[in-house]
Amino acid sequence: MSLHGKNLIAGVLSAHGSHAFHAMNPAGGAVLEPAFCETTLEEVDLAMAGAEGAYTAFRKSSAEQRARLLERIADGILALGDALLERARAESGLPLDRLTGERGRTVGQLRQFAEVLREGSWCDIRIDTALPERTPLPRPDLRRVLVPIGPVVVFGASNFPLAFSVAGGDTASALAAGCPVVVKGHPAHPGTSELVATAVSQAVAEAGLPAGVFSLLQGSRTEFAVALVKHPLTSAVGFTGSHRGGRALLDAANSRRDPIPVFAEMSSLNPVFLMPGALRERGESIVQGLKTSITAGMGQFCTKPGLVFGIRGAEWEQLSNSLGQAIASTTPASMLHAGICSAYQSGLDALAKVDAVRCVGRSATAARAEYSEPQATLWATSGEVFLREPLLREEVFGPSSLLVEAADADELLSVARVLGGQLTATVHGNAADFAGAGPLLEILERKAGRVIVNGYPTGVEVCPAMHHGGPYPATTDVRFTSVGTASIQRWLRPVCYQNFPETVLPRELWNDNPEGRMRRVNGRLSTEAL
Amino acid sequence: MSLHGKNLIAGVLSAHGSHAFHAMNPAGGAVLEPAFCETTLEEVDLAMAGAEGAYTAFRKSSAEQRARLLERIADGILALGDALLERARAESGLPLDRLTGERGRTVGQLRQFAEVLREGSWCDIRIDTALPERTPLPRPDLRRVLVPIGPVVVFGASNFPLAFSVAGGDTASALAAGCPVVVKGHPAHPGTSELVATAVSQAVAEAGLPAGVFSLLQGSRTEFAVALVKHPLTSAVGFTGSHRGGRALLDAANSRRDPIPVFAEMSSLNPVFLMPGALRERGESIVQGLKTSITAGMGQFCTKPGLVFGIRGAEWEQLSNSLGQAIASTTPASMLHAGICSAYQSGLDALAKVDAVRCVGRSATAARAEYSEPQATLWATSGEVFLREPLLREEVFGPSSLLVEAADADELLSVARVLGGQLTATVHGNAADFAGAGPLLEILERKAGRVIVNGYPTGVEVCPAMHHGGPYPATTDVRFTSVGTASIQRWLRPVCYQNFPETVLPRELWNDNPEGRMRRVNGRLSTEAL
Repeated sequence: MSLHGKNLIAGVLSAHGSHAFHAMNPAGGAVLEPAFCETTLEEVDLAMAGAEGAYTAFRKSSAEQRARLLERIADGILALGDALLERARAESGLPLDRLTGERGRTVGQLRQFAEVLREGSWCDIRIDTALPERTPLPRPDLRRVLVPIGPVVVFGASNFPLAFSVAGGDTASALAAGCPVVVKGHPAHPGTSELVATAVSQAVAEAGLPAGVFSLLQGSRTEFAVALVKHPLTSAVGFTGSHRGGRALLDAANSRRDPIPVFAEMSSLNPVFLMPGALRERGESIVQGLKTSITAGMGQFCTKPGLVFGIRGAEWEQLSNSLGQAIASTTPASMLHAGICSAYQSGLDALAKVDAVRCVGRSATAARAEYSEPQATLWATSGEVFLREPLLREEVFGPSSLLVEAADADELLSVARVLGGQLTATVHGNAADFAGAGPLLEILERKAGRVIVNGYPTGVEVCPAMHHGGPYPATTDVRFTSVGTASIQRWLRPVCYQNFPETVLPRELWNDNPEGRMRRVNGRLSTEAL
Repeated sequence: MSLHGKNLIAGVLSAHGSHAFHAMNPAGGAVLEPAFCETTLEEVDLAMAGAEGAYTAFRKSSAEQRARLLERIADGILALGDALLERARAESGLPLDRLTGERGRTVGQLRQFAEVLREGSWCDIRIDTALPERTPLPRPDLRRVLVPIGPVVVFGASNFPLAFSVAGGDTASALAAGCPVVVKGHPAHPGTSELVATAVSQAVAEAGLPAGVFSLLQGSRTEFAVALVKHPLTSAVGFTGSHRGGRALLDAANSRRDPIPVFAEMSSLNPVFLMPGALRERGESIVQGLKTSITAGMGQFCTKPGLVFGIRGAEWEQLSNSLGQAIASTTPASMLHAGICSAYQSGLDALAKVDAVRCVGRSATAARAEYSEPQATLWATSGEVFLREPLLREEVFGPSSLLVEAADADELLSVARVLGGQLTATVHGNAADFAGAGPLLEILERKAGRVIVNGYPTGVEVCPAMHHGGPYPATTDVRFTSVGTASIQRWLRPVCYQNFPETVLPRELWNDNPEGRMRRVNGRLSTEAL
């Protein structure tokens, strides 16, 4: 499959720019052909105008039409076959089995949103019928439904070149909602982006929808990211990446004359609390579980546990020793790109400089810099140091974690209280531990979007009950998730139609409920006709 | 009923400040006793710490407990009797019958949220049960519920001294959600605020809830508004008022290290489009309806129609003449306070200076400045002028409206396209008009939170289907409403509990569904036990 290296704007290849960039294989640094043409500000305008132009027709498409679009995209991605996986491997350094799994997740997400659309309760219909005889004032007929918010800009993430990139969770949920999508592809995997974009664009055409429903813009420069967020036609933004990057986009959106929502999933240390009973009963199993969770995918997951807390004592000492050895047994493998690897190294260097933070485990196998390999590293310190040193509460993206030994149960609560917002928090305990864990769980519920008992934060299930979000800086909006079917809610806004004749009322609000939707009618849920 | 003039912080009277202010009767300018003590920054800290301290116990209160709290508040407000209405009249200049109606609405809102709590679907429970045998990976048990976001700061509005003030819609919905509330009372009606706050505080005590669930801070200075929004313990903000005020609060929240949601309902011109068929068939009825909607309550409603559009022709000319006469027949009455009246006058002065905008109707009865009375005013201009003059798209708060004559149906669409975000948009038409109104309605749906056919925007029903919101600058968050039962969603965030034993799982997520909640279990809505 040959790559053209151009932007794909509303179905048309576009290469206005005079600058180009290449992807590089992180494992060895080989430059990957072809050159990709940098997007220009003029192309940003074209893509956004295309999205706006497609909005009205896409808004009117039926849920069934959009469900079929998503299924076509899924089929199209699978039809790309091994060429997609090979290109993604070359661009990301990720192994084929991981990428095969990620493709399955990507396709699964798209199909799950097709189901959501057919089930129909996502648009939260509320109908209050007229009460013309009511005194002192009659009540008009009021019908409310969630409608697509407008053109959405999605920033592809580097750590999931399929599942959080061109046709990942943000794009799938936005298309499901009925929003045209302009993707800013991640510059680390432009070839992967191009292949998937071609499949999306074909699916849009086959579904008989306007081409402006989807565009892909390629670029390695940050300047056009801000242009996309500040573009007057942009209605909302989805982003997965660093705290610095997400905050910059948030600030850009907030500096608009008309601020728009930014859903950035940014930074999380995913604290794990190990209670003494659990360590006594299954310390070795916890060591293995934690080791896997810290080092899988070279720690490049937003849910990697970067902090592990426990209480001073023999069990904790045992855990610390065993986990140090387990981390030392980690064989380095390529990180996603050289930039991530060097940022990881800077993170380690900063930790190494903190007094009273010591390294208690490090990959015994040497890490090859030219292969962007990281040394998995385990650190240890005391609760007292953790409380006074804010640097220890910052994410190090990669296979590093910090053990924090609290002097007692009270100090364990104190360290929990100083944590910032998190995607997840985890507690390992036995029944006796949990009998006294109420205060800790209360704190963690305030800090994290997902609280886990006797499990590990990595491996985020895509399902209705998933909440992949959390207080700032985990995300920029604590009320929404970026994984699972509830993520569609990010791209919707309510509209209330008062006293509309059916001739101009959206079909799902008609009296006879032709779409068979679950609706709240005069306060009661029902799928029946009025 | 004697007033103490102090803040009410977590059940305790507090007057640390050395500055004081008085309310004034807008009708005549009489100073109303007593002096009210300005809040200090120390008192902001006290109130927020009280709210945070109450959070955990309030979070654990049952829906039934909170429902009873809301009902007690409603009863307490009614028990204040005529003293409340008399004080509100003196402070706001609003007539007693209006205030009696507003009290009914306030009490009704509180009781409606009690019903919402008992019905139970507001917390959007989703349960995906474990699939331990699933390959390649098992699925853990995941249970998600909406929980209260944290302490909420509510800014009382001047134009609804009861329904959008101390125990108004923001407070009612936040308490229903389980969030402690700190109200910043509007300085125009501190006595009304104090009376209602006493009722709320008593209800909190009688419900056996911690006093920190509610505080009232009084003040006429803007400096402590920003302190409240930037306070580290504040989780979200509700505001109803001017665009300038709302934007200042939004910017303050966005400048925090950890930005928080601000729900500000700010500015709307509520455009009304009059189609030729409707004018032909019931022009005089439209004149009367518009006149009432523009001048009721001296135009001091966020949904007052400030723009009326039509197409050049005999019907439009007739409408213009008749509405001008109707507006001229308006008898001035006191506005809410002298500041609002002078802002209104400035708005009129600015319009009068625009070339090709002419006055076509003005209250024949003189307006008495010492009674803060406004002259109701109707203006007229062409679509062409409207398109080129951005000033005409800014809200003038008070009994003023602008007629805009489009040259033809195309220009009508053009003027609709340049509108900013609105709370409402209205179209009057007959069946023939609506046969061709699709493009106009599509534009208006993008611009407004509520679209009305053959009605008037004032008179906002409090019900499940109401959406009182809209794109910026109507509000700061297009996704949420500040009126109706859906407004509870502003104060909630999802938390997902993974693999929790029932001993530590919130009760509404237990297998046997002891609260009888509607829950989405493995994708299907159900009230049954698992």
